[in-house]
Amino acid sequence: MTTNSDVQVSVLGLGAMGSALAGALVKAGYATTVWNRSPGKADGLVTLGAKAATTSGDAVRAGRLVIVCLLDHASVHEVLDPLSDELAGRTLINVTTTSPAQSRELAAWAARAGVAYLDGGVMAVPQMIGGPGASVLYSGSAEVFHQHKPLLDLWGTSAYFGEDAGLASLYDLALLSGMYVMFAGFMHGAAMVAPAGVTAGEFAAMAAPWLTAMTGAFQGFAAVIDGGDYTVEGQQSLEFSNLGDILAASSEQGLSTEVVATVQRLIQRQIDAGHGQEGFARIFESIRQPG
Amino acid sequence: MTTNSDVQVSVLGLGAMGSALAGALVKAGYATTVWNRSPGKADGLVTLGAKAATTSGDAVRAGRLVIVCLLDHASVHEVLDPLSDELAGRTLINVTTTSPAQSRELAAWAARAGVAYLDGGVMAVPQMIGGPGASVLYSGSAEVFHQHKPLLDLWGTSAYFGEDAGLASLYDLALLSGMYVMFAGFMHGAAMVAPAGVTAGEFAAMAAPWLTAMTGAFQGFAAVIDGGDYTVEGQQSLEFSNLGDILAASSEQGLSTEVVATVQRLIQRQIDAGHGQEGFARIFESIRQPG
Repeated sequence: MTTNSDVQVSVLGLGAMGSALAGALVKAGYATTVWNRSPGKADGLVTLGAKAATTSGDAVRAGRLVIVCLLDHASVHEVLDPLSDELAGRTLINVTTTSPAQSRELAAWAARAGVAYLDGGVMAVPQMIGGPGASVLYSGSAEVFHQHKPLLDLWGTSAYFGEDAGLASLYDLALLSGMYVMFAGFMHGAAMVAPAGVTAGEFAAMAAPWLTAMTGAFQGFAAVIDGGDYTVEGQQSLEFSNLGDILAASSEQGLSTEVVATVQRLIQRQIDAGHGQEGFARIFESIRQPG
Repeated sequence: MTTNSDVQVSVLGLGAMGSALAGALVKAGYATTVWNRSPGKADGLVTLGAKAATTSGDAVRAGRLVIVCLLDHASVHEVLDPLSDELAGRTLINVTTTSPAQSRELAAWAARAGVAYLDGGVMAVPQMIGGPGASVLYSGSAEVFHQHKPLLDLWGTSAYFGEDAGLASLYDLALLSGMYVMFAGFMHGAAMVAPAGVTAGEFAAMAAPWLTAMTGAFQGFAAVIDGGDYTVEGQQSLEFSNLGDILAASSEQGLSTEVVATVQRLIQRQIDAGHGQEGFARIFESIRQPG
């Protein structure tokens, strides 16, 4: 019987995220070797039971499974390029934040080096790792994903998207785009009520449950988009989705209107193209087919 | 003892929202008179027990409490201006969607006519009225709000913001701005994954819980904004909040980048002003103090 302590894992990169990922493995009993370019980052993990490697080469040689969580795509090549011979025959899981194109490039590099490759995108801040809200998206080798799923599940909910190594990054970036845009919308709302003496905290207490409730609309929009017919009954029309009052109230208070005006433009392009009576979900087409 | 059936209420405007509001009152036993400019809208409510008035004047005279839910600010004046004498001494609750300036104008008009005025903003779609997710925001006469709170609570959670009649509309528009911007972010994410064969429905299933979890960040941003010090430790910096990968991946797929580029601009303006090491919440300042 294989126990966790029989699995030799190495984690390269001990920033806040890498340390959190390594910590979850050590606590679950995996034989974990850790390495970081600048020293001192391993101390807490060593106290928990990890081994600290003095060179990246030592770290790679210590693990059958090598996990990298570095600054960016360039750092991954900088650390791994000199070690491609050592990596051959091992398994590489890369959770460094990269673009889909960069993930695909690394997958191709790994294939040439004889390394099994899985790409991961962590949808959590380090403090969330191992908790209920964390999820990690994967794509690349299905075999690596399924073989190591018990280990991956220590970090959060694990989702696998397919053999194309770029898919996890693409999903990651798509979810992050939704997040950053939502944050900007929250900030705009907070700026609107601020001149009336409403604190951002008071606004946040209203906005968080309101926006949570409104995520309930996503499946309805999705059904219309996937159905390809924006004239389905029961939708709020584009003409009814007039952001003029919001823009006017924002301008009156001297705010930048750019965040809301961008959405208004998506709506207006569809109205101008003759689709004003169709559903709000049609702004998807303003994004999919620009200009 | 006063029971609901002793309270004479009139509802003017029987679109989807007005009908839902009136229906909740009839079901709770209020003596409800309803009116709509075009006929036929009252039939369902009459079946439930409402009285249908043939003119707006008859409707106003039948109710001590007059609720209006019309198309827009102009419609409210069109219907009520000829009835200011009849309205004198009565109570008016206006839940028509209006801007803060329009709400204040109606409050001043009501004061001149001797009408107690409460302005409301309904944060729900008609189907949600009376259910757990609905809330209605009020401002204007505190006396009206407190006296009629049991009736108002039939529609959803009732929140009162103050004597300035424009506050409810302002809050309403601020929450709606957050919603529309979040919807645009969702659509952008769905458009990013679509070329990889991911349906909007599959993306919605990931995005709804993800964005719900991320509303958890609002209070942290708010604490920084309200504290007025964007250099507080433990925040994600503006420099780290680089949307370049998202923009590149979107462009590569031929999508419009405008939604995400707007957020990137808010970030960049703060970086250009020398605040790159400060927290992400600082984009609030890009909105509050435009270029």
